[in-house]
Amino acid sequence: MAMIGGGPGAFIGPVHRIAAELDREIELVAGVFSSDAARSRAAADIYRIDPARAYPDLATMLASERQRADPADFVAIVTPNHDHLPSARAALNAGFAVISDKPMTATLTEAHALAKAVSASGLPYALTYTYSGYPLVREARARIAAGALGPVRKVVVEYPQGWLAGAAEGKQAAWRVDPARAGAGGCIGDIGVHAFHLAEFVTGLRVSELLADLGTVVPGRMLDDDCAVLLRFDNGARGVLLASQIEVGELNGLRIRVYGEHGGLVWRQETPNTLLLHHGDGRTEILRAGDAALGPDAARRTRTPGGHPEGYLEAFANLYRDFAEVLRGGTAPLLPGAADGLRSMAFIDAAVRTSAAGAGWTALTI
Amino acid sequence: MAMIGGGPGAFIGPVHRIAAELDREIELVAGVFSSDAARSRAAADIYRIDPARAYPDLATMLASERQRADPADFVAIVTPNHDHLPSARAALNAGFAVISDKPMTATLTEAHALAKAVSASGLPYALTYTYSGYPLVREARARIAAGALGPVRKVVVEYPQGWLAGAAEGKQAAWRVDPARAGAGGCIGDIGVHAFHLAEFVTGLRVSELLADLGTVVPGRMLDDDCAVLLRFDNGARGVLLASQIEVGELNGLRIRVYGEHGGLVWRQETPNTLLLHHGDGRTEILRAGDAALGPDAARRTRTPGGHPEGYLEAFANLYRDFAEVLRGGTAPLLPGAADGLRSMAFIDAAVRTSAAGAGWTALTI
Amino acid sequence: MAMIGGGPGAFIGPVHRIAAELDREIELVAGVFSSDAARSRAAADIYRIDPARAYPDLATMLASERQRADPADFVAIVTPNHDHLPSARAALNAGFAVISDKPMTATLTEAHALAKAVSASGLPYALTYTYSGYPLVREARARIAAGALGPVRKVVVEYPQGWLAGAAEGKQAAWRVDPARAGAGGCIGDIGVHAFHLAEFVTGLRVSELLADLGTVVPGRMLDDDCAVLLRFDNGARGVLLASQIEVGELNGLRIRVYGEHGGLVWRQETPNTLLLHHGDGRTEILRAGDAALGPDAARRTRTPGGHPEGYLEAFANLYRDFAEVLRGGTAPLLPGAADGLRSMAFIDAAVRTSAAGAGWTALTI
Amino acid sequence: MAMIGGGPGAFIGPVHRIAAELDREIELVAGVFSSDAARSRAAADIYRIDPARAYPDLATMLASERQRADPADFVAIVTPNHDHLPSARAALNAGFAVISDKPMTATLTEAHALAKAVSASGLPYALTYTYSGYPLVREARARIAAGALGPVRKVVVEYPQGWLAGAAEGKQAAWRVDPARAGAGGCIGDIGVHAFHLAEFVTGLRVSELLADLGTVVPGRMLDDDCAVLLRFDNGARGVLLASQIEVGELNGLRIRVYGEHGGLVWRQETPNTLLLHHGDGRTEILRAGDAALGPDAARRTRTPGGHPEGYLEAFANLYRDFAEVLRGGTAPLLPGAADGLRSMAFIDAAVRTSAAGAGWTALTI
Repeated sequence: MAMIGGGPGAFIGPVHRIAAELDREIELVAGVFSSDAARSRAAADIYRIDPARAYPDLATMLASERQRADPADFVAIVTPNHDHLPSARAALNAGFAVISDKPMTATLTEAHALAKAVSASGLPYALTYTYSGYPLVREARARIAAGALGPVRKVVVEYPQGWLAGAAEGKQAAWRVDPARAGAGGCIGDIGVHAFHLAEFVTGLRVSELLADLGTVVPGRMLDDDCAVLLRFDNGARGVLLASQIEVGELNGLRIRVYGEHGGLVWRQETPNTLLLHHGDGRTEILRAGDAALGPDAARRTRTPGGHPEGYLEAFANLYRDFAEVLRGGTAPLLPGAADGLRSMAFIDAAVRTSAAGAGWTALTI
Repeated sequence: MAMIGGGPGAFIGPVHRIAAELDREIELVAGVFSSDAARSRAAADIYRIDPARAYPDLATMLASERQRADPADFVAIVTPNHDHLPSARAALNAGFAVISDKPMTATLTEAHALAKAVSASGLPYALTYTYSGYPLVREARARIAAGALGPVRKVVVEYPQGWLAGAAEGKQAAWRVDPARAGAGGCIGDIGVHAFHLAEFVTGLRVSELLADLGTVVPGRMLDDDCAVLLRFDNGARGVLLASQIEVGELNGLRIRVYGEHGGLVWRQETPNTLLLHHGDGRTEILRAGDAALGPDAARRTRTPGGHPEGYLEAFANLYRDFAEVLRGGTAPLLPGAADGLRSMAFIDAAVRTSAAGAGWTALTI
Repeated sequence: MAMIGGGPGAFIGPVHRIAAELDREIELVAGVFSSDAARSRAAADIYRIDPARAYPDLATMLASERQRADPADFVAIVTPNHDHLPSARAALNAGFAVISDKPMTATLTEAHALAKAVSASGLPYALTYTYSGYPLVREARARIAAGALGPVRKVVVEYPQGWLAGAAEGKQAAWRVDPARAGAGGCIGDIGVHAFHLAEFVTGLRVSELLADLGTVVPGRMLDDDCAVLLRFDNGARGVLLASQIEVGELNGLRIRVYGEHGGLVWRQETPNTLLLHHGDGRTEILRAGDAALGPDAARRTRTPGGHPEGYLEAFANLYRDFAEVLRGGTAPLLPGAADGLRSMAFIDAAVRTSAAGAGWTALTI
Repeated sequence: MAMIGGGPGAFIGPVHRIAAELDREIELVAGVFSSDAARSRAAADIYRIDPARAYPDLATMLASERQRADPADFVAIVTPNHDHLPSARAALNAGFAVISDKPMTATLTEAHALAKAVSASGLPYALTYTYSGYPLVREARARIAAGALGPVRKVVVEYPQGWLAGAAEGKQAAWRVDPARAGAGGCIGDIGVHAFHLAEFVTGLRVSELLADLGTVVPGRMLDDDCAVLLRFDNGARGVLLASQIEVGELNGLRIRVYGEHGGLVWRQETPNTLLLHHGDGRTEILRAGDAALGPDAARRTRTPGGHPEGYLEAFANLYRDFAEVLRGGTAPLLPGAADGLRSMAFIDAAVRTSAAGAGWTALTI
């Protein structure tokens, strides 16, 4: 694996590195870790790779790696959003498979362009919608698909954070509140899109309409930092999506509740190893990672026995495990790809546009 | 106290009786427990009151009680919503103070009429917005009023239930889904209005605008059973109010989260004796009923030492304790009255009307 | 009901009053609320009873009440432990049924004397082991009796409190650390005995042997304030009983865990409306008050629908409801009586004696 | 790193591999993964290492690795307990540093022999008492050391599991119930010793006396599977240590509660990213991984921002990070070593011997 982005001070770069390598199927060997050549070289130390493979720019890396006997097999893109399209396109054009941090691109237009490039290349392309890698999220999806709740009627997905309640300080915060780097969506593109993907992933439904109300709470901010979106799904189910980055004290409180005609379930990211399941007959079950009652989707994605907590890095690694399977020529139907990316970008785009216009209910197409 | 409603099979009548009598300041002595005279008489047994004071109809009760040397001092109205106005008006006209189950009336027009009657009578009138009686709800209100969170920016209040996910069976369910008895609001009038009151009570703010999306999920139902309402408060704060009666497995999950510039708090009705308080400096506190750290509003409203759980009946009794204080000539500034009732009815009315019309953002006046 | 004890400043007296009256089957009408006649009279106001029936001493009360046309039917004893025997005996001798706060008496010898008096009187006698009144404790007992766990192998019952971690100040604390009023047991007699009763109540087993290690942690204290007791039950099951009053920050954390050959369950007093049930096949259920899955023992002992929390007062009231049933000539097999009281006193006695002697494992007889 | 043990079907071998490699400071390059040469070779595939370095036996590995230009720097021992001494001694003698799974050895006598060998070698030696690697365990230790609770008075440490409630089936279970491979302790040596280490680690105190009651609940089992141990610490504090493997439904429920003169704290392994802190003034705080309020010991041992859960593998990796620091010539004062190993073995030995003898309180020396 070669990395694009993830230089000194980065959060998500090291996460990708750990996740990719956790199962020893993948090894980080090269990278353009910063647009600053000196900083890129400095990262060789951080990641403990051959300094000669810490390249000054993407073109050099792609050219050099192609000429090696043991080139990287794929690139992982962990830059801010505005760089996702150019980097992914260049890598695909040079014959490298791509796994990219979400969202797919900075704009919907770019996403269409990238989807075309992926399709033209015939190469694997994946997006790290991390939360779909949690074993109990996969269990939730499998249970709903098997009819445990009956037809889904209602979805509530929330993603509260509080770290941008003040002025956005530090490298992580700065680009997220800058339209030039983040794209048109702030909170909606940073975390709302995770909630959107999770809702479709878990239910197997698609959002067909939405009504968005995006707010900018912190004075002087240029992008949204607090979002409420009402949803309709293609089977008629009703939904609510809330995401915020100004809820002081909230860390990373993503959670989803799904209700059907005869059951309900609740999953919370901050206690990811349990899943609450309400049966229509008045019984409530707690499903726990490691329980004998869990299905194969969840069981195959845990690395420790029940009661030995797994978390964010392990969920992330599950996506890389899926990606490795695809690179080996297998399939990984649950791994998010270009189609998911396009839908997500269409969601961000529709939410931002219609909220600004006060447009009320709007169809979500693609 | 004399009761109107609460006959055999009732849920809220016995709750009012227990709550009223818990502190031994009030005693149930009379009632019209049913519009069916025989059933009303039968209730004398259930409540263990003098059978002679289990009256066949309201007019008889008011007339008879007025002639007694030891009449009831006030009436408690626990009938379905459509009866609230006529009963309350009759009681006030006959010189009896009134405490009524929420909502104030079945319609906003009726609420105006009742507010006028209350005002004209000069008599005490209270509404049992039960959840405002919990000690830690009062603590939450006091903390926010004292600036613990800074200016409030965001409110999320949710009220999930699941008991009407199927066909509405039984006495409790039947009138709630019947517009003739419940009024124009279903879920919004039954529980959404509790959430609305709680949000205003805890924050001390007023909702100035709303955008409502009320749905009827169960086929054939005539009233809403699933509600999402976006809110703006008079200080510019953003809010979300969710209420549902079709979320299978949810019991009575009312909860509220409030975030200000430098703090946040979370309270959940099903674990009512704790309050989570996020400080802006990264500390999180759990406030517990009975802790030395609690303020007087909460401390005076608990009856047991910390760790001895109190619940719904005790919260309800706190409203009756306030009401008793008013009857004795004192004041109870936190006890909901006609003004709260009017605001709540305006909220229901606006939500129902604008949702039906797809009207988008609407001002909430009164 | 007539009360002995419970004067100004008392905690448990008002609790008995509320609990007794909650279902309107019982009414407090008389009492000797203090050994100080003036204070006893003052309590008439607190309890809102006829001042003429707030008596200066027990003999006067018993004599006076016997001569009334409408005498109290029974006495409730809520004094410190050393008074339980004389008060109960006097009441029984005067023909009054008795319900008493636990423990039965201050010493085992006294308990034998009282058991004899109860038996001789032929009158109802009950002990308020409060926690056996919680609906989900009764559910736990019923499930175990029905074999849900298989034969019980292991019991862990804990009762942590922290309020006596410092010097014992205030009326509530003072008598509990005074051997002359509390008896030979401090923490073990105040709360350890609740844990003991709960363990036998829930499992239906009897402790046959124990090894006690009682400590006095706070310097200068004369009674134990921190207890560990190892248990063996009559079916061979192993057990651990922990009780402490010096665990800073703990409020009233009674909890019990029971494990059988093919299941386990967990109940916690501070969240009393749920019960965790582990099935041997790897499924875990949460049973909630109000769920359709609950048995009749629990269902009959709840007063509100699921999700409307009930607590300590309601649990306490369930014992009075049982007692009322007995007074009416019915039966209440789950209501603790003299036999439970004797066992509990034998437990306290054995724990105190053998701990002091370093005696190791000791049989618990009676 | 070279591994001893961890062949096909192993649990803890892969855990060590992931933990060691998580920070890319260590790489698994060689191993004797099984005493069966063919199985050892097969493991090269599982771990994706050079097949030539999957050795048939320990002597071959040590000899071969010593002759390489790029030998392994240390060995990780992940075999059953009876193998810990011979493997560690051989490795040390051959000049390899050692990190070993706990317990140190199968018997106390062996532990003394190994301690001598470690000391003679002058090489780094570490033991993976995993739970001491959790960031919030380190925070707990730091808070207590800084006096947050005042002098410690009481410790309750529990380790409930249920997976050996039935017949012990499978590779993981089989050796743990076999005295020839596990040593004299069953549950006490497998998990009780973790609880013991955690108690001393968090409090900074030493157990000076114990009273052990080890039971064998499952018929036919040869080692203990349910343990209760009463403790005294060197400062006079009282303690209770419970460990069980027959508590059906419990997964890996290690938790510790510590109380001092003016504070208390609670940590639970299954929700490892929070720590409850009771202040003596009635305030209760929740400390969360990632909070600004956390000290450097905890902060340096987290890899993700707050709210992105970390778990068992990350805690384990923290020990390897400490070990890497030692290998580089630095220090890691919190990393368990031979002294901890000896104390732990003395604890197991004393518990097993005195329980069998019914010996009551016994000093714990070393």
